[in-house]
Amino acid sequence: MPDGYISGTGESPDEETITAPLLHRRNTTSQIALVGSNPCLVESLDYEIIENDVFKQDWRSRSKFQIFQYLSLKWILCFVIGIVVSLIGFFNNLAIENIAGEKFVITSNMMLANRYLAAFLIFAAANLVLTLFATLITTLIAPEAAGSGIPEVKAYLNGVDAPAIFSFRTLLVKIVGSITAVSSSLNVGKAGPMVHTGACIAALTCQGGSKKHGLTWRWLRFFNNDRDRRDLVTCGSAAGIAAAFRAPVGGVLFALEEMASWWRSALLWRSFFTTAVVAILLRGLTDTCLSGKCGLFGTGGLIMFDVTSVDITYHLTDVPPVLLLAVIGGIAGSLYNFLLGKVLRLYNLINEKGTAYKILLACTVSILTSCLLFGLPWLASCRPCPADTSEPCPTIGRSGNYKKFQCEPGHYNDLASLFFNTNDDAIKNLFSKGTDTEFHTTSVLLFFITCFFLSIFSYGIVAPVGIFIPVIVTGASFGRLVGLLVGSNSNLNNGLFAVLGAASLLGGSMRVTVSLCVILLELTNNLLLLPLIMLVLLVSKTVADAFNNNIYDQIMMLKGLPYLETHAEPYMRQLTVSDAVSGPLHVFNGIERVGNIVHVLRTTGHNGFPVVDEPPVLYGLILRSHLITLLKKKRFHITPPLTYVDAGKKFSSSDFAKQGFGNAETIEDIDLTEEEMEMYIDLHPFTNASPYTVVETMSLAKALTLFRGVGLRHLLVVPKTSGRLPVIGILTRHDFMPEHILGLHPMLARGKWKRLRFRFPLWNRIFS
Amino acid sequence: MPDGYISGTGESPDEETITAPLLHRRNTTSQIALVGSNPCLVESLDYEIIENDVFKQDWRSRSKFQIFQYLSLKWILCFVIGIVVSLIGFFNNLAIENIAGEKFVITSNMMLANRYLAAFLIFAAANLVLTLFATLITTLIAPEAAGSGIPEVKAYLNGVDAPAIFSFRTLLVKIVGSITAVSSSLNVGKAGPMVHTGACIAALTCQGGSKKHGLTWRWLRFFNNDRDRRDLVTCGSAAGIAAAFRAPVGGVLFALEEMASWWRSALLWRSFFTTAVVAILLRGLTDTCLSGKCGLFGTGGLIMFDVTSVDITYHLTDVPPVLLLAVIGGIAGSLYNFLLGKVLRLYNLINEKGTAYKILLACTVSILTSCLLFGLPWLASCRPCPADTSEPCPTIGRSGNYKKFQCEPGHYNDLASLFFNTNDDAIKNLFSKGTDTEFHTTSVLLFFITCFFLSIFSYGIVAPVGIFIPVIVTGASFGRLVGLLVGSNSNLNNGLFAVLGAASLLGGSMRVTVSLCVILLELTNNLLLLPLIMLVLLVSKTVADAFNNNIYDQIMMLKGLPYLETHAEPYMRQLTVSDAVSGPLHVFNGIERVGNIVHVLRTTGHNGFPVVDEPPVLYGLILRSHLITLLKKKRFHITPPLTYVDAGKKFSSSDFAKQGFGNAETIEDIDLTEEEMEMYIDLHPFTNASPYTVVETMSLAKALTLFRGVGLRHLLVVPKTSGRLPVIGILTRHDFMPEHILGLHPMLARGKWKRLRFRFPLWNRIFS
Repeated sequence: MPDGYISGTGESPDEETITAPLLHRRNTTSQIALVGSNPCLVESLDYEIIENDVFKQDWRSRSKFQIFQYLSLKWILCFVIGIVVSLIGFFNNLAIENIAGEKFVITSNMMLANRYLAAFLIFAAANLVLTLFATLITTLIAPEAAGSGIPEVKAYLNGVDAPAIFSFRTLLVKIVGSITAVSSSLNVGKAGPMVHTGACIAALTCQGGSKKHGLTWRWLRFFNNDRDRRDLVTCGSAAGIAAAFRAPVGGVLFALEEMASWWRSALLWRSFFTTAVVAILLRGLTDTCLSGKCGLFGTGGLIMFDVTSVDITYHLTDVPPVLLLAVIGGIAGSLYNFLLGKVLRLYNLINEKGTAYKILLACTVSILTSCLLFGLPWLASCRPCPADTSEPCPTIGRSGNYKKFQCEPGHYNDLASLFFNTNDDAIKNLFSKGTDTEFHTTSVLLFFITCFFLSIFSYGIVAPVGIFIPVIVTGASFGRLVGLLVGSNSNLNNGLFAVLGAASLLGGSMRVTVSLCVILLELTNNLLLLPLIMLVLLVSKTVADAFNNNIYDQIMMLKGLPYLETHAEPYMRQLTVSDAVSGPLHVFNGIERVGNIVHVLRTTGHNGFPVVDEPPVLYGLILRSHLITLLKKKRFHITPPLTYVDAGKKFSSSDFAKQGFGNAETIEDIDLTEEEMEMYIDLHPFTNASPYTVVETMSLAKALTLFRGVGLRHLLVVPKTSGRLPVIGILTRHDFMPEHILGLHPMLARGKWKRLRFRFPLWNRIFS
Repeated sequence: MPDGYISGTGESPDEETITAPLLHRRNTTSQIALVGSNPCLVESLDYEIIENDVFKQDWRSRSKFQIFQYLSLKWILCFVIGIVVSLIGFFNNLAIENIAGEKFVITSNMMLANRYLAAFLIFAAANLVLTLFATLITTLIAPEAAGSGIPEVKAYLNGVDAPAIFSFRTLLVKIVGSITAVSSSLNVGKAGPMVHTGACIAALTCQGGSKKHGLTWRWLRFFNNDRDRRDLVTCGSAAGIAAAFRAPVGGVLFALEEMASWWRSALLWRSFFTTAVVAILLRGLTDTCLSGKCGLFGTGGLIMFDVTSVDITYHLTDVPPVLLLAVIGGIAGSLYNFLLGKVLRLYNLINEKGTAYKILLACTVSILTSCLLFGLPWLASCRPCPADTSEPCPTIGRSGNYKKFQCEPGHYNDLASLFFNTNDDAIKNLFSKGTDTEFHTTSVLLFFITCFFLSIFSYGIVAPVGIFIPVIVTGASFGRLVGLLVGSNSNLNNGLFAVLGAASLLGGSMRVTVSLCVILLELTNNLLLLPLIMLVLLVSKTVADAFNNNIYDQIMMLKGLPYLETHAEPYMRQLTVSDAVSGPLHVFNGIERVGNIVHVLRTTGHNGFPVVDEPPVLYGLILRSHLITLLKKKRFHITPPLTYVDAGKKFSSSDFAKQGFGNAETIEDIDLTEEEMEMYIDLHPFTNASPYTVVETMSLAKALTLFRGVGLRHLLVVPKTSGRLPVIGILTRHDFMPEHILGLHPMLARGKWKRLRFRFPLWNRIFS
């Protein structure tokens, strides 16, 4: 048999240039990897239809009943995801309120008995134990569960499979760890982990349970493909936000605006269905708690902040202070992102050193937090209770607007009302109306500064902690501060200023607009604020965009997740695809020797290979995973087969179905004898015979439009002129990464084709 | 010079098969054309970057300042669009309320003086004159302005340029016609026309004003491309909904869910900005009317329905009636779509006969409407005014809950409160709370039936009329009816049932979910209803989807707009692209004789032609419009040029910029001498050298993913094997239309690969 005109043995001299540069250690969270250098990340083909003979036969053999079964199953899965996510969301809140509530009740009771030191020790010890527990399970069981999880899910929806992010292990640690971390009074949130939890549930559901634990169902095999899985994960993350904030429409929009990379109208409708299930079930569950059967969960007001104040009037004179708030909020938001990035880099260096360092760091943060929460309220002076309040004053128990803390009866400590509370209650207090005189300016200022820095220093610990709610708390205190400073010059009350402040800081750090707008509306239940919230979000996002990226993009960069942007960088219009193709190309013949295939698979990490027929003509593209399946099945030919053999009889399409997360087989798992190595495989039936191709002269920007628009994993570059090899390269996600391109063409980095943005070289030097 | 191996002269015997079958008359609205047979529709290339030498040089020559100018101009244009749309929206409402209000005041005063016949005559005459005016200006000046305009804008955003839909003429007629039609008490809406108005303003703004009237600015030339124009039109339509319902977030979502075919996160942000401008300005304008300076505009409550009833409680027992309402609403919605389609077909037959018929039809509808609105309230018995109402009862003037009509003092006519009012007021009355006893069941039933059929029979007249608000009125009366029938068995009051009824009918006919949800929330300003509205929308859309398509898709079908769906029909996976390619291919050589080009352009209607070089290799694709520009410029070579000539010196990219709507030049405009016909053009610099290509064996479904995902106009089909022609066909939008494919492969229509849907052959036979 002819050996083919292109070497299939990978003996090219510059082989090393394409093998991935760094081996990646297990703990993904504690890595500072350059973008594109993370070989553990398996990119997955997204929306491309793989057209090989085996799959085509499978499709044709599907009956009408099977198609109906598939369609109805997809809806049923959405329903199940909605049910499970809302149950978990409810359980989360219930657990947090009861654990944190019990802690505050015990501490408050001790303070009532004047045993302040003992109260502090119990408070700090409880926090430490809870934090320690969260950190330990995360470090030892599922390091993938650390952080908010939103960047990972966002990257997954963009086409990047980080290993084990959707395993059952990760899900369990995420739920338990999030409950304990939030209960431990750390300044961390539960919304991000809830999104990751929702995505996990969706991924596990469509996989039919955990592969590892054998809990899979045969009839879910239809969903063993990337497209359906991605759709359901989008629905799951929408459900997560819906459950965290009880904001169903906001959840859909957040999934659309921030999470999803590809969006179809059908997906909107499907995720709307999922969040509707969440909204309806959550309402029912909260109603059952109204009778007081849920311990310290209270009247069910804890997962929403119903701050209805219907009659808001505001005029043109209120706009200048709001604009000022938005501008400062935007600057503060971008500063927040900047500082968080620096702290995360520092923490990553510490966490990299080993488990002991991770635990030590988490404990330090926990003790520091306990000291600040318990210590700072002593700085505030006690204030007499207002006469006309409908709430009890001072409150001694868990929640409430007026905390007694160390004060005399009839007095309350305004700083303790903010610090010595769960984040949910602090937000509620800040958003509440008719409380303009409750907080002193210095108290709010102190709270704002503490929250700002504490949340930055808390996020990086190795535990399932989010950043959404801390930013809301910080923003709300900032808004309240502005409200106090503006005073009677504005018609808006301080509670409304707090809402606007939260909007400004969220807009400045997350840079989401429409979804944030809707989430805030659903949280505060007040539509009359809409024009002002829109104004604030517009201004703060615009201001912050002039400085740096949004926070999730920054974290993705830090984690080395190769996120592919929709828009092409301007310099990509200057380059052709042949400028981006790098490294030697490995090509297989239509009928290939087993030994060649094994050698190429062992020596390269590529996930797709062109298949070429005689006379030199491109037959298609074959995937690494399919080759491994073929090798595992060992249905080889002793001599090159001359006629077409029907492959459908030997293989079923489910053999080639996408494996569960992190369960992909590798070439090292396959043992072949010397004899088998000399045999042949007919690759034709397993080759995607209609891969997407671009001509070598196409600009990189245009190729990116195709790659990103259709959601590809591989894009073949074909020559312009005939008489040459029928394929001259493969473009993958990494080839479109700005870091990769600027590495190949460094002069572009200095050109005029960069994004317009303020830069502060001095700052960067100081902080790095 | 060699003539090329493919005939460029178009003498193929089956030439006729590809020329468009029917010539299209001017009045697009009165046509029932088969999909794909409408040659006046110019498809436009959407998001493909045209890469020819001339454009590349232009891009490279742009300075940093020009890029900055471009970016800031885009934002400024959005701002301008927001301002203009909100001003027009406000003016519309002001005019309608004053014209219709004046009419009702005069009629009511006459009835107070017992001059009932004179009152009717004046009422009917006023309505007739207003309708006549709207119909006349539409028929004579801008027939493109007829109907709601949403289908046209939706098709435009999908890539179909219907002629003159965005001209200045159309805009004027749309605004004036919509005001008069709505004022004439026809059961028609103003939301759809407002969307079209917004889109028109956006298109004219980015064009720099009306081309025809010479109002263009040089510095807007950057926006002479499809991509930017489409982005701004999306923003404009979002602004239209925002202005119509004062629902900024709903507007963005409607544009996203219903209008746009391609959506990027950046566009979300841009349209959010536009609607924020609308929301803020509208609020300011409405505030200025609070002091009563706007005539009968009232307290500014007319463009919103603030039915705040904060404390809603509902329990599990309320779900069954709501579910029932949703199911019936879904069935009613699909029936509505079905009947509307049939009536539109009938009306089109009438309207086709000439201007006189159009006017006659409109007059008939107007007189019928007047008779019903004035006549039906006489059937209702007078009811005594409730003692505890805060509103005046009976009201004599324009608006109000309790219309006196023919009743004694102290009594009111409940049917007149619904009929003898503007649609806005009727909706307000139906949505209002605490009015459970105000309307009698038979009155509401009568109103529901009348609205249902009247709105179906009103939409088809040749005037700028929408269908959104009539559906809301009909749905609200339906919901109220259900509420009355359920009575005290439910905790929900009848006003809330009306809101849910509106949701169910809208969900059943428009099939939008998230955006409708948000629009209804913004209209009613009540977030506690959210879970119920979501439930209703889910159920009604699901039920209605089992019967037929959404209403806008149906109207697009009727108008022959070739809308390209995102999802591929199942049978498209069974076909390869070569199965869909039809007709002979016209190919140009890289250096082509002028005579050949002229001949091909004259004999075919194709918009793109492959350019092939010697030896047979595909060079690229050239557009008809660019060829016409080249012919017009007459820079020909007497002999075939041998070396490359820099084309940038002879042409600037603005020569090739997209012309204004409906201003494209045709080949007939160009006169060439016999000598010139024998000269040559070097097509290389003007050819898009990197067109998207697919291999002939690719399935049609996969090619559609590419075509639709990237937004193409032409897709070249290349052969699998070498040694053949380098290109074997061009796929355009029409080749992906199900009608075209099923025409080529009729056996597929009978296969199992169809969508699952209930079918009623009997009904179709009765009604057609």
